Amino acid sequence: MNEIRVRSHARSELIEITAQLQEVVAQSGVAEGIVVVQSLHTTAAITVNENADPDVRHDLVQKLSQLAPREESFYRHAEGNSDSHLKTSLFGPSLTLIVHEGRILLGTWQGIYLCEFDGPRERRVAVQLVGSGNGTKK
Amino acid sequence: MNEIRVRSHARSELIEITAQLQEVVAQSGVAEGIVVVQSLHTTAAITVNENADPDVRHDLVQKLSQLAPREESFYRHAEGNSDSHLKTSLFGPSLTLIVHEGRILLGTWQGIYLCEFDGPRERRVAVQLVGSGNGTKK
Amino acid sequence: MNEIRVRSHARSELIEITAQLQEVVAQSGVAEGIVVVQSLHTTAAITVNENADPDVRHDLVQKLSQLAPREESFYRHAEGNSDSHLKTSLFGPSLTLIVHEGRILLGTWQGIYLCEFDGPRERRVAVQLVGSGNGTKK
Repeated sequence: MNEIRVRSHARSELIEITAQLQEVVAQSGVAEGIVVVQSLHTTAAITVNENADPDVRHDLVQKLSQLAPREESFYRHAEGNSDSHLKTSLFGPSLTLIVHEGRILLGTWQGIYLCEFDGPRERRVAVQLVGSGNGTKK
Repeated sequence: MNEIRVRSHARSELIEITAQLQEVVAQSGVAEGIVVVQSLHTTAAITVNENADPDVRHDLVQKLSQLAPREESFYRHAEGNSDSHLKTSLFGPSLTLIVHEGRILLGTWQGIYLCEFDGPRERRVAVQLVGSGNGTKK
Repeated sequence: MNEIRVRSHARSELIEITAQLQEVVAQSGVAEGIVVVQSLHTTAAITVNENADPDVRHDLVQKLSQLAPREESFYRHAEGNSDSHLKTSLFGPSLTLIVHEGRILLGTWQGIYLCEFDGPRERRVAVQLVGSGNGTKK
């Protein structure tokens, strides 16, 4: 098991972690298998989305905030971050991706993101590699 | 493969299953690897969220019900639970978490939940362990 | 690693891929383990939902489109498909399911779907099998 640290600088933002994760996979020596990327927090998620135009990240964050605004008359949780908890379960606290030929398999436009929904903070992301079977180690 | 049963008592509620899942992992003997937790239903999901303040679960369920109310003029599905199906795909039917040192790795505030979206019912949750490789069995 | 191709015929639709995935699992020889199903796109997701009444798929697509309409005054992304990107992260770009007795374990009403959110197009879905450990290969 490995862990990477990610520093966020806003209440809500998507921070690309593809390069750090590819480095963990490269060092693991697993050539064929899967990688599980898990946020260790209840107000930060993991997702894959567009890695080219940063406007996509802007639009995702803005639209989510419109769907789940910070205040609702029926919210009981005293910390005032129920929206952050909801967004985390909507995007998902962990993600499993395929490892192929020693790298995380990603489509042309896919990048991996830590989704900060209650920052700014330092976040911990755990990473676990599992090989597909015999002959899959380099 | 293992299976646990969960009894729900409301149409929508989050039921913590962390202890039962940790027990399955302990009995498996897998020290390092991953665990896949899969709902066998199309109106019940699996998620990770706050395990301390129960108001968070209340707020999640209420907000989801506001976003996806039970009735919509355009719904065609005759069973009247299209909202339950949508919530299940939003939170996700399965979840993969990291197993480290013989336990499911969770952050301080993370608990694992069966998300009942069309109860009350008895639900089946399947659990599969996969070790990381050589030397990872106790 | 395997790959299947899926042809969509609408901007938004759920296309069942259960049979193709079961075929990949059968040919892999893995009897006990897990399968990771990963969309290689940022506007197409993978989910599990009802395989019987097609009205459920209709209702899911319609409700998602109501929650995330194509146009928002604050959208910046010039391609006009920010809603497609959001829906993909909401439903999830990949899904991990349990393989048991040589088949993907599914509840009675569960089917696996490619979720097209910016079609029509041809989509690529990657599939990775991982066995549970010793004695799990046929």
